[in-house]
Amino acid sequence: MKKLTKLLMLPALALATNTATADEGMWQPHQLPSIAKQLTQAGLKLNPNDLTDLTGFPMGAIVSLGGCTASFVSDQGLVATNHHCVYGSIQYNSTEDNNLLKNGFLAKSFAEEVPATPGSRIYVTEEITEVTDLVKAGLNDKMSGSDRYKAIDKNSKTLVAECENDDRYRCSVVNFHGGLEYYLFKQLMIRDVRLVHAPASSVGKYGGDIDNWMWPRHTGDYGFYRAYVGKDGQPADFSKDNVPYKPKHHLKVNKSSVDNGDYIMVLGYPGRTNRYRTAYEVENTFTWTYPQAKAYREEIIDLIHTHSEEGSDARIKYESTLAGLANYAKNYGSMIHSFNKGTFFERKKSLEAKLAKWVNSDSQRKAKYGDALSGLDKLLKEDDKQQARDLILGYMRYNKMLSTAQRLHRLAVEKQKPNLARERGYQERDIARFEQGMKSVDRRYDEQIDKEILIAMLTHYVALEGSARITAFDKFFGLSGVTAKNFDENALRNKLDKMYKKTELASQEQRLAWMNKSVADFEQSQDPFIKLAVASFTERKAIEDTAKELSGNIQAYRPKYMAALIAYFNDNNLPVYADANSTLRITYGNVKGYAPQDGMVALPYTTLEGIVAKDTGVAPFDAPKKQLDLINKRYYGGYEKPAIGSVPVNYLGTLDITGGNSGSPTLNDKAEFVGLVFDGVYESIIGDWDYDTKLNRSIHVDVRYMLWVMEYVDGATNLIEEMDIVE
Amino acid sequence: MKKLTKLLMLPALALATNTATADEGMWQPHQLPSIAKQLTQAGLKLNPNDLTDLTGFPMGAIVSLGGCTASFVSDQGLVATNHHCVYGSIQYNSTEDNNLLKNGFLAKSFAEEVPATPGSRIYVTEEITEVTDLVKAGLNDKMSGSDRYKAIDKNSKTLVAECENDDRYRCSVVNFHGGLEYYLFKQLMIRDVRLVHAPASSVGKYGGDIDNWMWPRHTGDYGFYRAYVGKDGQPADFSKDNVPYKPKHHLKVNKSSVDNGDYIMVLGYPGRTNRYRTAYEVENTFTWTYPQAKAYREEIIDLIHTHSEEGSDARIKYESTLAGLANYAKNYGSMIHSFNKGTFFERKKSLEAKLAKWVNSDSQRKAKYGDALSGLDKLLKEDDKQQARDLILGYMRYNKMLSTAQRLHRLAVEKQKPNLARERGYQERDIARFEQGMKSVDRRYDEQIDKEILIAMLTHYVALEGSARITAFDKFFGLSGVTAKNFDENALRNKLDKMYKKTELASQEQRLAWMNKSVADFEQSQDPFIKLAVASFTERKAIEDTAKELSGNIQAYRPKYMAALIAYFNDNNLPVYADANSTLRITYGNVKGYAPQDGMVALPYTTLEGIVAKDTGVAPFDAPKKQLDLINKRYYGGYEKPAIGSVPVNYLGTLDITGGNSGSPTLNDKAEFVGLVFDGVYESIIGDWDYDTKLNRSIHVDVRYMLWVMEYVDGATNLIEEMDIVE
Repeated sequence: MKKLTKLLMLPALALATNTATADEGMWQPHQLPSIAKQLTQAGLKLNPNDLTDLTGFPMGAIVSLGGCTASFVSDQGLVATNHHCVYGSIQYNSTEDNNLLKNGFLAKSFAEEVPATPGSRIYVTEEITEVTDLVKAGLNDKMSGSDRYKAIDKNSKTLVAECENDDRYRCSVVNFHGGLEYYLFKQLMIRDVRLVHAPASSVGKYGGDIDNWMWPRHTGDYGFYRAYVGKDGQPADFSKDNVPYKPKHHLKVNKSSVDNGDYIMVLGYPGRTNRYRTAYEVENTFTWTYPQAKAYREEIIDLIHTHSEEGSDARIKYESTLAGLANYAKNYGSMIHSFNKGTFFERKKSLEAKLAKWVNSDSQRKAKYGDALSGLDKLLKEDDKQQARDLILGYMRYNKMLSTAQRLHRLAVEKQKPNLARERGYQERDIARFEQGMKSVDRRYDEQIDKEILIAMLTHYVALEGSARITAFDKFFGLSGVTAKNFDENALRNKLDKMYKKTELASQEQRLAWMNKSVADFEQSQDPFIKLAVASFTERKAIEDTAKELSGNIQAYRPKYMAALIAYFNDNNLPVYADANSTLRITYGNVKGYAPQDGMVALPYTTLEGIVAKDTGVAPFDAPKKQLDLINKRYYGGYEKPAIGSVPVNYLGTLDITGGNSGSPTLNDKAEFVGLVFDGVYESIIGDWDYDTKLNRSIHVDVRYMLWVMEYVDGATNLIEEMDIVE
Repeated sequence: MKKLTKLLMLPALALATNTATADEGMWQPHQLPSIAKQLTQAGLKLNPNDLTDLTGFPMGAIVSLGGCTASFVSDQGLVATNHHCVYGSIQYNSTEDNNLLKNGFLAKSFAEEVPATPGSRIYVTEEITEVTDLVKAGLNDKMSGSDRYKAIDKNSKTLVAECENDDRYRCSVVNFHGGLEYYLFKQLMIRDVRLVHAPASSVGKYGGDIDNWMWPRHTGDYGFYRAYVGKDGQPADFSKDNVPYKPKHHLKVNKSSVDNGDYIMVLGYPGRTNRYRTAYEVENTFTWTYPQAKAYREEIIDLIHTHSEEGSDARIKYESTLAGLANYAKNYGSMIHSFNKGTFFERKKSLEAKLAKWVNSDSQRKAKYGDALSGLDKLLKEDDKQQARDLILGYMRYNKMLSTAQRLHRLAVEKQKPNLARERGYQERDIARFEQGMKSVDRRYDEQIDKEILIAMLTHYVALEGSARITAFDKFFGLSGVTAKNFDENALRNKLDKMYKKTELASQEQRLAWMNKSVADFEQSQDPFIKLAVASFTERKAIEDTAKELSGNIQAYRPKYMAALIAYFNDNNLPVYADANSTLRITYGNVKGYAPQDGMVALPYTTLEGIVAKDTGVAPFDAPKKQLDLINKRYYGGYEKPAIGSVPVNYLGTLDITGGNSGSPTLNDKAEFVGLVFDGVYESIIGDWDYDTKLNRSIHVDVRYMLWVMEYVDGATNLIEEMDIVE
């Protein structure tokens, strides 16, 4: 294994074929010396080399919450992140008598701090090791895709298991550049996490789903956890005897915030981007997958609306499903729009043309990379052959009864294998979450709606051609030979009515009981959904195996294509960064507005007065009365920014971020905390595929707004005192 | 009669109690010398006195289309106005084979010009005479409200009839300052109006209802008529022997357009504003009338949507009704929002308090004005007592069968009187339009929807208390004693089913036949809607008479209040202008952007590129392919504005405009044509009540965009050659 410090530095890369922009790129810490000049030019006052040390300052202060990022902001383990990252913990501690989501929460002393939602963890990355050779050990060009898939899977799992021998750590093997490289991440896992403070949702979630992805924005999206460890300083389960964790490093909080144009950077764990997909993948995704998925989402939304009155029990159960469906329908809508209006596809095709020319201009390159793109695309096309069916099966998962039956049955199947050989999601480490999922069905299920979703998706299913069909489904539902033309919806309804009448999976007790049954038990069950799950298993497994075979083959070709691309970029002195993959990255840029539309300019800051202007008194625009009164009195209490004549609430940056960056601290040129990144603007949703200098903007909570609300609205002066506030 | 030139100049006035803004005010031409200094300071290069001469330059070039404004832009009677002002004429000339709305229209020679929609007129204001004394002749303080109402009505009608003795003219008596003054307007009425040119709706109505009242905007809202007269130069009915009218004056077209900050002015016929309403009227309107009316509109919209599939015949019939309903639901929504967020009401109350203090500080004033406001408010409150019922009856008019029956019966009643004694709308001069209305029912009526509207409004009606109810309605529908609690909707449905089955008013032939029947015929009719109209007439007439009595009394008090207000403003050296009343006015200001929201700035110009960015290929965002191609090629052809690097499409101004200003030319500091005003931004909808310097913005088509489309998209070079283009 090579430690990071010994790694050859990869030159940086950008997708743009002309000039790379200063603000594009999610950089791995070890890459920073290679872009030191750019960082210093952009305004960084630290030595870029200092940012490579994971356990030094400031990297040592950056942590992951799993899905969100956070940072230590005191020497007592105080952790700042987004309100939406601590939301579950606020909800978990809410009672009928004290709705913390509504009222907010503030512990005025350590003793008043409450446990975060079960399973909450704080991960401190301590080691990143390249393990490419180990993961690829035993691979060869002649093995089947399936064997390759299994070999990589097994090697990875073994590395993780070894690393996790020390149970203070959570480890993961992550692929970079589509499998060109693999890294092992070792993270200290703090298991006693407590909620310290969160403003009322009417601050922390101000604007709600309506303002989601939107500018102008006025959201106080912040909250605080505290990390606790045993008296020995080591991770421990919750105990009242635990003590606050003392991080090696924490961030100073600069209450001056930043000005328009200032250098800012975000350190965090961005989730997933697709900057190096092929033109074929781009076209297929934007002209087929996203439009189709958007249509299915909108169909299911309509159907839930139709079958549940606003405010009814059924509607309440589906509110979060609806929010998720709408969220991505909006997301896809934005991306489709950006794709149609922009030059992304043209640039992608032009890049491939240039790459091909570069490859073909040299016989050695030609030998090495000649079939990389065509080979990859061929496999991708093969993989997409049944994408219509696969998408339908995907959205069929919104039906709870069938998906529950299938997952329970699969659990029984997987349990027959040794732990490490099981599928992800069915290993011992996954069981607690699995059980949680089975329990939560109660809160998210309504028979009528569940049935309608299945009918809707089966209606699309019958339009599929024969080769795409699942014989067991056809047989079970009496759909053999049935097409869109002769489909009898009423007959299907009758069938489903009977199934729902008979199934016992709507009972939590039953679902939990099935978690411990054997495959034989399943095979003998008369529950209609379990019968269907069992009957269709072989075919569904075959689909999965085919996918794995292809995936294994793609794992041979994608790295080859990426190697070609990287070599091409290197040859052109263009910087290279890897797609986001939930690992620690740095992105830097400036505070800056933009032009969302012809004839409009988005200013880089919003102000307190904008909250009053938006406020309707009705959620999500129902700021606390105390806050509105203070604003109406222009009570800024020392937090106003003279240039804008008010307290800044949110600001725009050019940073290259994505989901997973949520909760990341925004740092100034001295790596001082000046806010939290929490969203991107509508026009940058396509940023997961294509960074556009003109339109890509991150949205940050201004530290001044955080402190103003904490001091004057919520009275969280104990936390302000705990932090190192500088100016 | 006093001619305008002999009038004492009224000092100008503004609602704002602090400083009047340069841009607020819809000035009567004769007032301009009194604000000469401000005009010159703002940048006007002409002598303000020149603007008072109705038959001189530039006033002589400004004409009314009745509801819209327009202007002569060549010495051959070419008239420029908005696309939406010539829309009916485009529609009228469309055929199945040649959809002019879709394709646009261009006459390449006089011979190719086609008649505008029947009834189209061009009005050239030639004389404005104050007739206050004549209109108020015979009034005294002791007469009843009803007698006062009748006296004013009779005096006005007599003046109009005398003036219209010369059938080349259309005349009207218009009250200013709520009846403090009356003016007689004498307008030359050109009866042969022809359509010359209009771009495709995908240019002229680009953005449609979605962009209506919105910025950023990209609408080419322009079109051209030509005025024709007999060979003697006098107005004449259409004849192919007619010749183009030669106006005394026409506007030069300055293709340089205007820059950010430049002086601009609009001359036109603004419809109606309410800047001098009392605080009581404001509160009642914004907290009761508008919210309630908005709710009824949204209810009827929902109901039409529910009972007509998109694209169905029924839906098509109601499209324009829907557009109208939605238009004002949006309008009211904006005004309610502005009212709730702004300081309008506080300022209004503060003005009344200051006025009261001023009046009470002087015994003479006290004697003269002491009871003006309280007396007016008392009458207004009396008038609003049955406003819940009146609003329901108002929205019941969306039901075609009942309103048709009532109007036809009323026609028979009015026809019993001499022409001049008849109600407005039922005089000889109104019959052609009345008949047109009866014919158009066919295109706007669907039985099911008509029925649902009646049911919806009757459902609200039964919630009214007894004193508000119409006994004949209760009796006819079996609703006597019925309240919201015991209302039986099904019984009403059965009753209505029978009525719709039996009525013959859905037949155009029948409706036209009823136009010529006697009151006795109506009284003998068995048609259920006619029976209801006849049965309820006495009560409805009594409501009308009560309203007239009150109106007559208000006509005594409103002028007194306005006199007090004007005296107060004069005493404070504040300028005074009258509320808009569809008479000729001038407003001036500058090209200027604004901040619609915290964190956003609206730039003063949009550009060609914004059209491509908005375009979806689907109406209303479906610009002509030729246009899109030109833009994509950046083919500006000499019309680009260097400061913005493209051809400006629309621009923002600070002008104080309202409906009726549509089609008004926008003039530069030398009174040259630099565009057309066609809308205001969303935030200025409340402008009809309250001008806000920060948010009130007019939207104009830039002359460069007009000329660019005309030259390169539509090839209307003949018109460009006909106009006097200057730079």
